[in-house]
Amino acid sequence: MQVPELIRRKRDGGALPAEAIRAFIAGYTDGTIPDYQAAALLMAIVFRGLDAAELAAWTDAMLHSGEVVDLASVRAPKVDKHSTGGVGDMISLPLAPLVAACGVAVPMVSGRGLGHTGGTLDKLESIPGFRTDLSIDRFRAQLERLGCALIGQTERLVPADRKLYALRDVTGTVESVPLIASSIMSKKLAEGIDALVLDVKVGSGAFMKTLEEARTLARTMIGIGAAAGKRVRAILTDMDQPLGRRVGNALEVREAILTLRHMGSPDVRELTMRLGAEMLVLGGVAPDEAAARAQLAKAVESGAGLQRFAQIVEAQGGDPRAVLEERLPETATSSVVIAPRAGFVAAIDAEGIGLAALALGAGRLRKEDPIDPAVGLELLRKVGEAVGRGEPMAVLHHRDERGLDEARRRVERAYRIAEQAPPKRPLIFDELGSAA
Amino acid sequence: MQVPELIRRKRDGGALPAEAIRAFIAGYTDGTIPDYQAAALLMAIVFRGLDAAELAAWTDAMLHSGEVVDLASVRAPKVDKHSTGGVGDMISLPLAPLVAACGVAVPMVSGRGLGHTGGTLDKLESIPGFRTDLSIDRFRAQLERLGCALIGQTERLVPADRKLYALRDVTGTVESVPLIASSIMSKKLAEGIDALVLDVKVGSGAFMKTLEEARTLARTMIGIGAAAGKRVRAILTDMDQPLGRRVGNALEVREAILTLRHMGSPDVRELTMRLGAEMLVLGGVAPDEAAARAQLAKAVESGAGLQRFAQIVEAQGGDPRAVLEERLPETATSSVVIAPRAGFVAAIDAEGIGLAALALGAGRLRKEDPIDPAVGLELLRKVGEAVGRGEPMAVLHHRDERGLDEARRRVERAYRIAEQAPPKRPLIFDELGSAA
Repeated sequence: MQVPELIRRKRDGGALPAEAIRAFIAGYTDGTIPDYQAAALLMAIVFRGLDAAELAAWTDAMLHSGEVVDLASVRAPKVDKHSTGGVGDMISLPLAPLVAACGVAVPMVSGRGLGHTGGTLDKLESIPGFRTDLSIDRFRAQLERLGCALIGQTERLVPADRKLYALRDVTGTVESVPLIASSIMSKKLAEGIDALVLDVKVGSGAFMKTLEEARTLARTMIGIGAAAGKRVRAILTDMDQPLGRRVGNALEVREAILTLRHMGSPDVRELTMRLGAEMLVLGGVAPDEAAARAQLAKAVESGAGLQRFAQIVEAQGGDPRAVLEERLPETATSSVVIAPRAGFVAAIDAEGIGLAALALGAGRLRKEDPIDPAVGLELLRKVGEAVGRGEPMAVLHHRDERGLDEARRRVERAYRIAEQAPPKRPLIFDELGSAA
Repeated sequence: MQVPELIRRKRDGGALPAEAIRAFIAGYTDGTIPDYQAAALLMAIVFRGLDAAELAAWTDAMLHSGEVVDLASVRAPKVDKHSTGGVGDMISLPLAPLVAACGVAVPMVSGRGLGHTGGTLDKLESIPGFRTDLSIDRFRAQLERLGCALIGQTERLVPADRKLYALRDVTGTVESVPLIASSIMSKKLAEGIDALVLDVKVGSGAFMKTLEEARTLARTMIGIGAAAGKRVRAILTDMDQPLGRRVGNALEVREAILTLRHMGSPDVRELTMRLGAEMLVLGGVAPDEAAARAQLAKAVESGAGLQRFAQIVEAQGGDPRAVLEERLPETATSSVVIAPRAGFVAAIDAEGIGLAALALGAGRLRKEDPIDPAVGLELLRKVGEAVGRGEPMAVLHHRDERGLDEARRRVERAYRIAEQAPPKRPLIFDELGSAA
């Protein structure tokens, strides 16, 4: 099928044959199909979607546009976690070492932050010396030895996705459930996993604003996994306020370390335990959630999780004392944001907090912007907590005066204080997917 | 507004501000906005459309992407005709000289054929020596002197449309009423006209298959004209069977000459008179259709129309004897297609006939293909006419054996012969637009 005919067929609501999808992805990846035809097809997909068979073919074609990691030499079950992203979401950092310490290998390929959300790679690189650009051979070897490696997408993994994502970013075609789902799933399937746990964020700080949208995305990814013969479970979790109490790269590494010391924020701890339990059960090293939680709790108490994190850091060129002694970049200056009146925190707009951290230099507006690992903010009060008039609500960790005024304004605007405590909102809304 | 935001706004069903449309068209024309962003926006427009205000701004921006011809020096009223295209539609050839002979100037910029439909420029170029690439100055001077010039789109007229059309052709974004309407209207408005008559074709051989689709396109073009302060009338006419009895470039010039001699096919004659009458009334040289028809009939009878055609041909480098003595290219060979059984012609599929002519070499599949001016076919029987078993239905004029078998098969398939004569189908279905 010629490309214009393919575009017209999708435009008119028809289904694309698997062979045509394969030829399109291969041709776009090798440059024989130009960006403008891909852009037109992507926009038609935004409107018309992809059915289950098309999605399976599309994801499979993306997956096979590059190398698929062969982890046959890693004997442990291989289970990864993916989060659709939010503010303060550093769960991968405590989760991956903890799960690895319990006998499930975690071959995690992560991304960088853009806009108001952070990225796991940026957080890891706030650890002095930490390298995320391992070769696939080193990635595999570290998985064999430590059961966990945390790297960035290489040139050889899913090149179609890198090219398509860059195009979607500038053509208004990011917001499409099948394109989002296939992008995520192709990268995860390329890691050589046996199973996957998805943390689908819902709320004002998430891409999916409603539970129904989140369920649709989750079901789509589970369907793609099923078509590829992989068990996938999705947990729908709250992103109406930031996760944890720290936003910023080194600050979030600190939150991760505290969690592995059983001293972190309750929401981070609970989400780590819940996602970890799903991974252990999917990996077959625990019979059910209760048993899995007990194993994870033991790995926290014994320090096995923290030790594993330090080993991973060391294996990837970082200073293990960053983890063991919390030797992390810090700013010399900080300022507090005080409550304008007494009451209860009714809401903290996650996107506003993310933009405040961005203003301080913790994130990037464009891909090429540098980031400052030390800056960010601590939320002293979270939703439901009482605050007195003039009491500090948040601490801003800033470099000189950079972005300070904007960050302060954004934090003030992000906090909503009411006379009554708001009804309690659950951390976990729903779960879907393969039976364990 | 940044381009991705513009694309997203249209994608989500919002209206684009005029300023953003102007910036987009200007940026795309000068190359600062890349094809891939234009392709995504075009596909979003295919789905979401453009409202009247957006269409006016879009067309105006296209129009001003290049030169707008200033015809102030041409004293006669300036009225053009545009047809949405069909098989055997050479109406411009008899119409323009005839209308010019009646005192209305016709500044006609035409296109080339592609696929199963022919193009006015290709037909004109079957006249030995005829040049369609006049400069704007020569175009203007000829309009002053002869009241008519027939040229192709220059580099300077609506460059945005040339670029957008080439992109639409390869990105599945041709089929959009606002994009079609703005493409046509921007080119016509750039000619410096006072008013315009549209011949919107309806039926199996036309782009618009139903009367409702044709009405929508007509209303859209009339609205664009109104926003630009130009009177536009649209006539909705039949394209279920080919127009006239000849398909092919020189063959259609012959049909045009016969029409100017009052010996052409009745449908060609009637459509020429009807469209011409609209042009004369819009141009203000006749008070009503009846008076206009009388003037046109007189210009046929006196030979003024034919003489004017010969003068135009001579002014544009062609041999006037091509018109006056029908000295036109001919093939040395021809073959007949006979009726497989007796009956009445119930239908002649216009697209099939167009493809038969294409097979013989009368048209082009790709823009760069050469065409043969002499080849084509004559329809000896049209819809409603009786035919005996074994009688010739059509004559194929071919060069050697090129495409002969395919053309014969296509003609045989295009003709449907029934026992009863079909109900008479009108040539003109409806008219819409500005009051004269």
